[in-house]
Amino acid sequence: MAAATGDPGLSKLQFAPFSSALDVGFWHELTQKKLNEYRLDEAPKDIKGYYYNGDSAGLPARLTLEFSAFDMSAPTPARCCPAVGTLYNTNTLESFKTADKKLLLEQAANEIWESIKSGAALENPVLLNKFLLLTFADLKKYHFYYWFCYPALCLPESLPLIQGPVGLDQRFSLKQIESLECAYDNLCQTEGVTALPYFLIKYDENTVLVSLLKHYSDFFQGQRMKITIGVYDPCNLAQYPGWPLRNFLVLAAHRWSSSFQSVEVLCFRDRTMQGARDIAHSIIFEVKLPEMAFSPDCPKAVGWEKNQKGGMGPRMVNLSECMDPKRLAESSVDLNLKLMCWRLVPTLDLDKVVSVKCLLLGAGTLGCNVARTLMGWGVRHITFVDNAKISYSNPVRQPLYEFEDCLVGGKPKALAAADRLQKIFPGVNARGFNMSIPMPGHPVNFSSVTLEQARRDVEQLEQLIESHDVIFLLMDTRESRWLPAVIAASKRKLVINAALGFDTFVVMRHGLKKPKQQDAGDLYPNHPVASADLLGSSLFANIPGYKLGCYFCNDVVAPGDSTRDRTLDQQCTVSRPGLAMIAGALAVELMVSVLQHPEGGYAIASSSDDRMNEPPTSLGLVPHQVLDQYEREGFNFLAKVFNSSHSFLEDLTGLTLLHQETQAAEIWDMSDDETI
Amino acid sequence: MAAATGDPGLSKLQFAPFSSALDVGFWHELTQKKLNEYRLDEAPKDIKGYYYNGDSAGLPARLTLEFSAFDMSAPTPARCCPAVGTLYNTNTLESFKTADKKLLLEQAANEIWESIKSGAALENPVLLNKFLLLTFADLKKYHFYYWFCYPALCLPESLPLIQGPVGLDQRFSLKQIESLECAYDNLCQTEGVTALPYFLIKYDENTVLVSLLKHYSDFFQGQRMKITIGVYDPCNLAQYPGWPLRNFLVLAAHRWSSSFQSVEVLCFRDRTMQGARDIAHSIIFEVKLPEMAFSPDCPKAVGWEKNQKGGMGPRMVNLSECMDPKRLAESSVDLNLKLMCWRLVPTLDLDKVVSVKCLLLGAGTLGCNVARTLMGWGVRHITFVDNAKISYSNPVRQPLYEFEDCLVGGKPKALAAADRLQKIFPGVNARGFNMSIPMPGHPVNFSSVTLEQARRDVEQLEQLIESHDVIFLLMDTRESRWLPAVIAASKRKLVINAALGFDTFVVMRHGLKKPKQQDAGDLYPNHPVASADLLGSSLFANIPGYKLGCYFCNDVVAPGDSTRDRTLDQQCTVSRPGLAMIAGALAVELMVSVLQHPEGGYAIASSSDDRMNEPPTSLGLVPHQVLDQYEREGFNFLAKVFNSSHSFLEDLTGLTLLHQETQAAEIWDMSDDETI
Repeated sequence: MAAATGDPGLSKLQFAPFSSALDVGFWHELTQKKLNEYRLDEAPKDIKGYYYNGDSAGLPARLTLEFSAFDMSAPTPARCCPAVGTLYNTNTLESFKTADKKLLLEQAANEIWESIKSGAALENPVLLNKFLLLTFADLKKYHFYYWFCYPALCLPESLPLIQGPVGLDQRFSLKQIESLECAYDNLCQTEGVTALPYFLIKYDENTVLVSLLKHYSDFFQGQRMKITIGVYDPCNLAQYPGWPLRNFLVLAAHRWSSSFQSVEVLCFRDRTMQGARDIAHSIIFEVKLPEMAFSPDCPKAVGWEKNQKGGMGPRMVNLSECMDPKRLAESSVDLNLKLMCWRLVPTLDLDKVVSVKCLLLGAGTLGCNVARTLMGWGVRHITFVDNAKISYSNPVRQPLYEFEDCLVGGKPKALAAADRLQKIFPGVNARGFNMSIPMPGHPVNFSSVTLEQARRDVEQLEQLIESHDVIFLLMDTRESRWLPAVIAASKRKLVINAALGFDTFVVMRHGLKKPKQQDAGDLYPNHPVASADLLGSSLFANIPGYKLGCYFCNDVVAPGDSTRDRTLDQQCTVSRPGLAMIAGALAVELMVSVLQHPEGGYAIASSSDDRMNEPPTSLGLVPHQVLDQYEREGFNFLAKVFNSSHSFLEDLTGLTLLHQETQAAEIWDMSDDETI
Repeated sequence: MAAATGDPGLSKLQFAPFSSALDVGFWHELTQKKLNEYRLDEAPKDIKGYYYNGDSAGLPARLTLEFSAFDMSAPTPARCCPAVGTLYNTNTLESFKTADKKLLLEQAANEIWESIKSGAALENPVLLNKFLLLTFADLKKYHFYYWFCYPALCLPESLPLIQGPVGLDQRFSLKQIESLECAYDNLCQTEGVTALPYFLIKYDENTVLVSLLKHYSDFFQGQRMKITIGVYDPCNLAQYPGWPLRNFLVLAAHRWSSSFQSVEVLCFRDRTMQGARDIAHSIIFEVKLPEMAFSPDCPKAVGWEKNQKGGMGPRMVNLSECMDPKRLAESSVDLNLKLMCWRLVPTLDLDKVVSVKCLLLGAGTLGCNVARTLMGWGVRHITFVDNAKISYSNPVRQPLYEFEDCLVGGKPKALAAADRLQKIFPGVNARGFNMSIPMPGHPVNFSSVTLEQARRDVEQLEQLIESHDVIFLLMDTRESRWLPAVIAASKRKLVINAALGFDTFVVMRHGLKKPKQQDAGDLYPNHPVASADLLGSSLFANIPGYKLGCYFCNDVVAPGDSTRDRTLDQQCTVSRPGLAMIAGALAVELMVSVLQHPEGGYAIASSSDDRMNEPPTSLGLVPHQVLDQYEREGFNFLAKVFNSSHSFLEDLTGLTLLHQETQAAEIWDMSDDETI
């Protein structure tokens, strides 16, 4: 209870302060605003709360803030009274702590005082219901620090009670009460409001009349000595009015103390009991009005809420405990990403990254590291393809597997990798396909792999590539990259290719051919599909995305079976252990950069590097004979490739001719290409 | 049974072939040899097996190879007969399959034939017991492919049995048997061998005499028509001799068929039954000797073993199923590392890496990625220090944690990280310490952190740094790196420091001061401790390791509390998700490179980069005022640092003076250093 001091002869009027009631929905909405809109902006924000005057006895008077607090045009709940506030959300706990609370209070008090002096508060009494909310949201821990203030201007002296508070039914007849109820409802309806925070009252034995503050002179014409005012009172204590009365009494003293010595106050309380409306429990009392008609200075103000311990200090709510852990994980993952947009890369279009569907061909060292980095970028849709099982040497280099996964012959990598992603982050949509990718030079009608199985594998792969946006080639052989490279090129999917040597690696994107019709135009509206081949004229120009080659473009040997006749150190990809992490991370960062480009996969290959100004190799750009054949003949063409040695593809692409010409000109030990 | 064909009038002699018995120990030893010694060497290797003639009925005749097979000087087990072999271990399954088995057999047969012709086999009958073993060891899967061959020269025709096999007790009296036993034992003892594979026998009704082959002429002087030979027989079938007899009969035919028409063969079988020795179950028979005294050409040979299906083909054993999974994991992890040494980096000293003890200060994004890379390098001793708990945003970026680790407030990172390493690879020695690192500007006699706790933390940290070889600084603030950097410098430990920006990072080693006395000399024998400061004379020279600075050397602001007053996006290390993987991997690769240098942490900082030829900053090299104070005053000095603002350290190191001078010369907004 805030006590007013003064004349010791009479009881002094005391007021029940508000308890702030900040709903979980409010904090969720604040979190969203902070992340997506305010970011680092600390400027004061308008917010909106409300209070209710129908609570049963025992409940404190609450000023409630809900998720709707940030929408100033949101409707006020029925029979509630609005309050307008200012949110000071700080960026740091430090500035939360060091905020000048005295100054903030004074500023708010001054605004209220000015609205009283100018008469604006008479026109719009909600101006008296002002509150402040100082917050700091620790979104990493879901801890919310806050301090609530409902500024109350102080009268120059405490107010002696001429007549102590009594229940309305002790002062008013039933008829008067019914008349008050009717008059109040009519005025609310006329004004189109859910509640009247403050109003004027005039009554005789039969009738009670109410009016808006602004009609004061007309309404109170002919009154002597005493006037009656009504306040919508959130308090339900029998002896005390609630906090909103305070500023209204200051207004009354300022406006009317020159004409009247006292004011009768009706604390309007309007609850429903056992199905029937009841305003009879409202209280009514009379106080002496202090003389402050012409005082020019803003009175001192109070209003910062005490904390749970009863001292002057902030409160903290820890919402991490009451949130669903999986949703908490989702928003936490998003948090780190959104923070990038606040200051460092405001133009970053996270949605383009988060919504991309990634197909990872290979769930080994590279696949695991690429998946981990994709998770870090918030990518939600990740699919693995692999046909291997987890062996004992894998877990220390393939960061999605553990020792347990190796037992009893080892789990299939693709499935185990998808399971692990779910364990890391339940919000991810991860799948695994334990299947082989048909390869040139690995005959399909030989041994146990039948032609029919190969046909099914090709179809499955075509479907998978079709249903994803970005295809990562992360296998451990050269030739297994061939088929997906061809299919992805045909389907105009972005291909990111990573391959490891011992202490070297390749991370590249494949060129994205021009769309067949208009289909890719939707994805990349800026892509110059319709425009002429602007850049084809000069070999020295930067290369547009649709002219970039693929992994096989610069090779002079077509892919064949590279696993036959390999020694142990050639079978395993023997590389410096750190290399896969570096290459995997760069592959994803490359994807992200390409996705951020307005033309996506058609982005020009530009670089500040001087080498880019040299001609892009004299071998020309991209031999697309293979693509044409695939699109014409489909699986029949592929079956020929799988069952043939190098020569079939080399004949097709003209490499055979190139070899003959080269060999005529120089000695070239081809065997070296095979074995080292 | 291998059948000999020929004269249909009499039964033909048939021989029971050897079954190869390749012990698990043999494959383990082959694995070790392959990894550490043979590597890519496919040259034939001498190996050694043995056979036994005391098995009970029902067991096949086995040629056994154990772990000792690779040690040609290893003793032969008691009562076993040695056999010498040649191991052809191929590098690839392909060359295993395509090995010219006919040629290998011919070569071996020819050697046997030459030893017969030259008489060498008479001197050393073990030359007749030759075998071949063609292998391919798939050490990734622990699949061992092998094909065993015991070359047997074929006689020009099959051998008619003049007298069919009967038990020795049907031909010899008890007296004769005892005499044989005694004679054989005496000869073994005289010769100092465990068994005689072949020997000569002469007997009458009372006495049996035995002799070495080389004494043939003396021993058989006066014999007519028939001689008796003894063969140590691994077969226990009543009707058939074992394989070793075959080459001996060829020798007999070649040597003696001009003198004798037939030979009596005693297949010496020597088992212990119910505690008593029993040679009575030996068999004896007589065969016609074919005429081949002067034939010059090597006879054709047979001997490749049939596989389990009864066909001519190799066998495979899968040892992954019968090995202890944890040991399997250990050797698999080592495998990938050892493969690097085979061809790519033969000089790599893996022991220096594997045995290093690493202390990771920080188990967040960097710490997790560094630990993963260390595991990939086979490092077995990893200790984490961190005081944070795992939050929901961590698992997608910190690859040692999962969603489950975040529940109920989150597990302590240091402990969870250590647990995870054990799950990845049970062979690792990982520990976690959930503790804070005292920091400059974070007062220790304030709030709940008492001075005593800080003293304990410092002591704990000193002990941890003392007991490790390499200290990784992987924290998320600048000032938390200060204390460990000082302690590690004082203890002359290699410090690797990694720190992330948004799309930039630092990975560096700290300079390693010269050893106080001789202590570091042991570690780095090449370090020029005693030599004069050879390089100090020129600022343009490359910088030796002991003159390199630390993370703080180039700073003009001493470390202080950087976490106060941080906005959300400054609190979390907001960086491109791929960055930590890259920096973590590079930090470990840097450590490995430094460890490989003969001078270790004292390695000169050389680079082909031109910038290295510029002077190493005009601020001089390393201000070691801090180190001196720490070594003199210990915790008292540290407590001052923790409790002071920047100014204490800046006064000490002369930075205050530098600032004053700088500010006199230019406008410098120091507040920017604090908040951005």
